[in-house]
Amino acid sequence: MPTIIDIADKLGISKGTVSKALNNADDVSETLRKRVLETAVEIGYERNRARKGTADKLCMIVENFNYNDPAAFGYGIVMGFKKLAIPAGWDVDVVNVTPEQQEAMSYDTFMLSHEYKGAFAMGLTLRDPWMKKDLKTTRTPTVLYDNYILDNPRVSYIGVNNDEGFYMAVKHLKELGHTKIGYLGGGEGSYVTQARHDAFLRAMKNHGLEIKKNCIGRSYFISECTNKFLPAQLHSQVTAIICGYDLMAQAVLTQCMDLGYRVPEDLSIIGFDDAPFAAYTNPPLTTIRQNQEALGNCGFYALNSLINQTYIGTLLLRAELITRSSTGKARQGNLAAPRKLPI
Amino acid sequence: MPTIIDIADKLGISKGTVSKALNNADDVSETLRKRVLETAVEIGYERNRARKGTADKLCMIVENFNYNDPAAFGYGIVMGFKKLAIPAGWDVDVVNVTPEQQEAMSYDTFMLSHEYKGAFAMGLTLRDPWMKKDLKTTRTPTVLYDNYILDNPRVSYIGVNNDEGFYMAVKHLKELGHTKIGYLGGGEGSYVTQARHDAFLRAMKNHGLEIKKNCIGRSYFISECTNKFLPAQLHSQVTAIICGYDLMAQAVLTQCMDLGYRVPEDLSIIGFDDAPFAAYTNPPLTTIRQNQEALGNCGFYALNSLINQTYIGTLLLRAELITRSSTGKARQGNLAAPRKLPI
Repeated sequence: MPTIIDIADKLGISKGTVSKALNNADDVSETLRKRVLETAVEIGYERNRARKGTADKLCMIVENFNYNDPAAFGYGIVMGFKKLAIPAGWDVDVVNVTPEQQEAMSYDTFMLSHEYKGAFAMGLTLRDPWMKKDLKTTRTPTVLYDNYILDNPRVSYIGVNNDEGFYMAVKHLKELGHTKIGYLGGGEGSYVTQARHDAFLRAMKNHGLEIKKNCIGRSYFISECTNKFLPAQLHSQVTAIICGYDLMAQAVLTQCMDLGYRVPEDLSIIGFDDAPFAAYTNPPLTTIRQNQEALGNCGFYALNSLINQTYIGTLLLRAELITRSSTGKARQGNLAAPRKLPI
Repeated sequence: MPTIIDIADKLGISKGTVSKALNNADDVSETLRKRVLETAVEIGYERNRARKGTADKLCMIVENFNYNDPAAFGYGIVMGFKKLAIPAGWDVDVVNVTPEQQEAMSYDTFMLSHEYKGAFAMGLTLRDPWMKKDLKTTRTPTVLYDNYILDNPRVSYIGVNNDEGFYMAVKHLKELGHTKIGYLGGGEGSYVTQARHDAFLRAMKNHGLEIKKNCIGRSYFISECTNKFLPAQLHSQVTAIICGYDLMAQAVLTQCMDLGYRVPEDLSIIGFDDAPFAAYTNPPLTTIRQNQEALGNCGFYALNSLINQTYIGTLLLRAELITRSSTGKARQGNLAAPRKLPI
């Protein structure tokens, strides 16, 4: 195991200077500190313990995710994680990161410089520098929510079982007489939107239902889904639409009402996530729940097991179908033309 | 929550008799005890705590699995489970079950009668009465090794990531120049043999390799694989065979030597599991490792989370490719006819 002496030798500086740099002393320049950290990461140096008088620290990395507001999806996840981590003796920092910050400092350097023993990351996309490169080789125990890294045992994936969720959603619709079912979901920039799209296709196949032409719409932009793909699906006479996430489902509900259609009489809608607002849409949304606090719990379970060298690769929570009023019996016959046209 | 009074009312007997029956008192007949237990399960009675002076108990259910001998695959799993459960204050019983026992007593009745708070089951097959029926509705927190129950949140599935394992195995062979790769694995009576067969097909597809006719052999009986499917694959000029488990790979190694072929010069062989004997076959076996002690650890993690109402559905360990001498560069040209014919 490399020590600070190895860092000192490699840089031709004293052991004391390395120690100061690692411990954020004021009399070490930022440039030198950065070189020390990068060398430390390069040779595989790991801190053995936190400095005296401080607890060991874990980091929750957050991007594209609102977690401060109890009405936000991320709130329950952060809470669930902290509820297990803090009684177990960890300090937990929640840190927002941007792609620019990721570009400026490598993942392991970031972790080492802040003395984090492990991290739980939410909301990273496949375009993020840390996802594209650093996490493939990181040595820091890391749990990713809804992201998967092949072949690096230091990284776990946690999430909900998408296949199970879509299986239940399609089963529910089929029992209500629906056979023409559409899908509207996120674009291809993230692991989870791809996984949910694929899970929809498998669920339709497993229930023996045909996927109609024009009945899959995917975009990063909700407006593109509601203005372009939704009219195409209505034109194809779908009787139900499953959305890749609740915010999309809410937009589809609103747009259908604007077009003069009734939910669920003309069209059934199902969301995914059971975000806090899903019970309060008009009508309340049938959705596939991922229990947010349980996700946070699982994040800690998985991270704790990685820190203890048990290499959990995948941890999936059960999905649960929450039936509310946005789904009902399939309409008989075709939809009338919309009373209003989309703008 | 139903109490013993509800059981007493339902059976028209006294509360004291119910209590005696639940606590194995000598003066209650076996017939009455059985009726009390079955009624308790039927109305959803759950014991709140163990009797005074006893620890809470968990059960490891074992079928078709050798675990007493350190050279057996199950040994590490049992040890890994106990290493976490016992320090956490649980008593752990390891119990062998047969299909006949399962037929005679329902799963929940068995659990209630022995005061088990949860169970970790290894080696159940899809033909087992408890798998076919009871586990679909059980209320007892239960973790299944290599078995999956849809739609019952009280049951978790743990195992190794088969897709990842086969992906790495096929990648390794492809890098050695193999393109004609066969598969020999277990029959259709178990969840895991089906999962591994499917994972092989996906891995071949993901690496852009064609699956040749006659190059998949599956049977519950190893002898059928070596006597029938192996000659067919050799005839089809495969240069490598991946086996669904190490015991099969060992049999294939032996049979190839009997036929006068050299491993890996004529044929590369890969197993799955990294059973304790895999390092000592001739030549030592390249295999996909599932870390047995880590599996036992995960069994406890998952069971503990179910008992605490976090419904982990799936927990997969990372697979690891262990490269030994049974794999090498793909041979050029066709195999010679076997020196000996299979018996």
